[in-house]
Amino acid sequence: MEKQKILINGERLKDTLEEFADFGRTENNGVTRLALSEEDRLARDYFYKCCHELGMSVRIDDMGNIYATLEGVDNSKPPIVIGSHLDSVKKGGRFDGVLGVIAGLEVARTLVENNIKPRVPLTIMDITNEEGARFEPSMMSSGVLSGKFEKGTMLAKRDIDGITFHEALQAIGYEGDENARLKEATAFLELHIEQGPILEREGLPVAVVESVLGMVCYELVVTGESDHAGTTPMDMRKDALFAATNMIAQAREKLRALDSDLVFTMGRINAYPNIHTVIPNKVIFTLEARHKDPAIIQKVEEIILELTKISSNEGCNITAEKLWDRQTVFFNEELCDKVEEACKTLGYPYKRMDSGAGHDAQFLASYIPTVMVFVKSIHGKSHCEEELTMWEDCEKGVNILLETVLSL
Amino acid sequence: MEKQKILINGERLKDTLEEFADFGRTENNGVTRLALSEEDRLARDYFYKCCHELGMSVRIDDMGNIYATLEGVDNSKPPIVIGSHLDSVKKGGRFDGVLGVIAGLEVARTLVENNIKPRVPLTIMDITNEEGARFEPSMMSSGVLSGKFEKGTMLAKRDIDGITFHEALQAIGYEGDENARLKEATAFLELHIEQGPILEREGLPVAVVESVLGMVCYELVVTGESDHAGTTPMDMRKDALFAATNMIAQAREKLRALDSDLVFTMGRINAYPNIHTVIPNKVIFTLEARHKDPAIIQKVEEIILELTKISSNEGCNITAEKLWDRQTVFFNEELCDKVEEACKTLGYPYKRMDSGAGHDAQFLASYIPTVMVFVKSIHGKSHCEEELTMWEDCEKGVNILLETVLSL
Repeated sequence: MEKQKILINGERLKDTLEEFADFGRTENNGVTRLALSEEDRLARDYFYKCCHELGMSVRIDDMGNIYATLEGVDNSKPPIVIGSHLDSVKKGGRFDGVLGVIAGLEVARTLVENNIKPRVPLTIMDITNEEGARFEPSMMSSGVLSGKFEKGTMLAKRDIDGITFHEALQAIGYEGDENARLKEATAFLELHIEQGPILEREGLPVAVVESVLGMVCYELVVTGESDHAGTTPMDMRKDALFAATNMIAQAREKLRALDSDLVFTMGRINAYPNIHTVIPNKVIFTLEARHKDPAIIQKVEEIILELTKISSNEGCNITAEKLWDRQTVFFNEELCDKVEEACKTLGYPYKRMDSGAGHDAQFLASYIPTVMVFVKSIHGKSHCEEELTMWEDCEKGVNILLETVLSL
Repeated sequence: MEKQKILINGERLKDTLEEFADFGRTENNGVTRLALSEEDRLARDYFYKCCHELGMSVRIDDMGNIYATLEGVDNSKPPIVIGSHLDSVKKGGRFDGVLGVIAGLEVARTLVENNIKPRVPLTIMDITNEEGARFEPSMMSSGVLSGKFEKGTMLAKRDIDGITFHEALQAIGYEGDENARLKEATAFLELHIEQGPILEREGLPVAVVESVLGMVCYELVVTGESDHAGTTPMDMRKDALFAATNMIAQAREKLRALDSDLVFTMGRINAYPNIHTVIPNKVIFTLEARHKDPAIIQKVEEIILELTKISSNEGCNITAEKLWDRQTVFFNEELCDKVEEACKTLGYPYKRMDSGAGHDAQFLASYIPTVMVFVKSIHGKSHCEEELTMWEDCEKGVNILLETVLSL
């Protein structure tokens, strides 16, 4: 006789997600729950209470990360960790981050109510300040845990009101012990909304995430000359906006030809003095591009550097500065296979894909076997009040986590 | 025997210009003398004093315009008026505006010291708030005098600190009588720096100005969709900046082909949300164009409206709104000829040209025979501390005014 499959409780998952959405719910059914805010504190307190009620032991580390652990059969083994973040951007959605934390809670609840003790301990983790919306940079605490960021520098980061991260952490009562940090784990599993339109386009509810794409971001500065818009003949101008639009046109043509999977964006552009009757003497814009293959990113950088030497520069001077880059992070192959297996076992249509967005998992992957699971976003929207994922897809995502935990 | 030619005193003109530059002189030898500021009051007071000492009668009208009048032989005839403005932009130059007022003073001084009584009265006029740098719009008072602007609306205009034009006018003690307004004149003569590079390029010190170019200014709004820069495939984007750069490229090509004398500028551009990791969902930019021929301006408008229907709109919606336009203002032909004659008499190389910039003269031209004289700007710079016109060119410009007054 086939063993009865254990599934999570979809109704309870939905209810819990809605309970958490109350901590910072906006008028338009979004969420504003900035890191270490009062709303974050309330969400953390409730999360703590839920875990505690479930018989989990809870600890806090020096970055305010919360770890709730359910005992396993062999508690000398490193835990399986399910985690994500409870913070949101301003006027963000009800799913980004919080889904991956509540997923862990729902998995733990399911195990407890079915009297299943996992082979190794199960830890649910809330990672502080993934968004970086109040305190830059994003993925701050996973960055500290993985040695990418220096703790002292991060504690000193200030929000727009001049409050430091450290002060805010103490103010909400979540400064814990450095010894509590996640040091090793059997696996780190992060369930997250896709934040893109690919699963919707392909009619799939879930995906196994193989990597977080490498990226590079440049700032380009075009310097021309400001003259009177009415008195300066066209052939005597050094129009920085004309030069910038020539560059953008050329960049688009070359980048589009490079690789169809490449995504690139000029998201920020500022002209100076930005007055309708004055020829712009300076235009600054960003160009960022993401791709899995480092060789493609290398070519993107070559194209950007070529842009500084374009002949159609309208007499302007052009410089390019790399703001930052990141290498592609490949997730643990075995874990990818385990998640894929879970999808098959559960009969969920899925695909393997890459994440264009950054996540805490990419930092933790540097020292812990890690994998991510994506669930379909409606219209690919995130970081906005319209962010939406179907309840049944959330449920599928959490069932995949449960199945993966049981198989490990 | 040929009559001894009367010329102005170049040294005195230079000294007077430098005296006035002291009212608001900046660190880098520019001038900040915003309309109705303390610096403007000091300049007005000194101007008043100079005119009074010369035996001129001075009156002030309800917009704060100052009129200093030297008696003529026949004082029943309308005066010849020489005028411009004493106000400057923030960190402007020592020549823009003030030159045209001091020119009048120097002409009056020359007449008085040579015991010449002009046939009709000679009035020197300081026109309040030409720049509009503190109180928008520019050319405010000439606009009220010529019926383009409504006085009450203008008096209620506020500066950045919330002070109204009316309050500021009263505060510096320059609110006069509506009856004092300029109602008729034999001629209005405005000497001004070119504010463009054409005279310098052609090696000419002065120009007879035949017109102020007609212009049109549109605001174009491109609406796309904001999505995550990392997770949205290129073929699923509605990138408002890409659409805007397509439009700018197309506009430039068509406008360049239209007429070589057409000048056009995209001076202001703003992208939203203007974050490097987010695809812009909105770009707003201005497109303004100037030309003497109304038919060309008409074609410009047609091209702009075509832009809202370009096929390369990247899936974005495009709207165009006309912010304003102005018709070409043609100056008085007889006066143009008189000024040209004066140039010839004085042996100054000159050209006839048009003004791409706006001036008080263009409003006064609606009810008074008007003409302008330009003097060469170095590198075409104005509205900045580097603004420069050679003293000998200033002198030539004022000599042209004197010669024109004597010939009228």
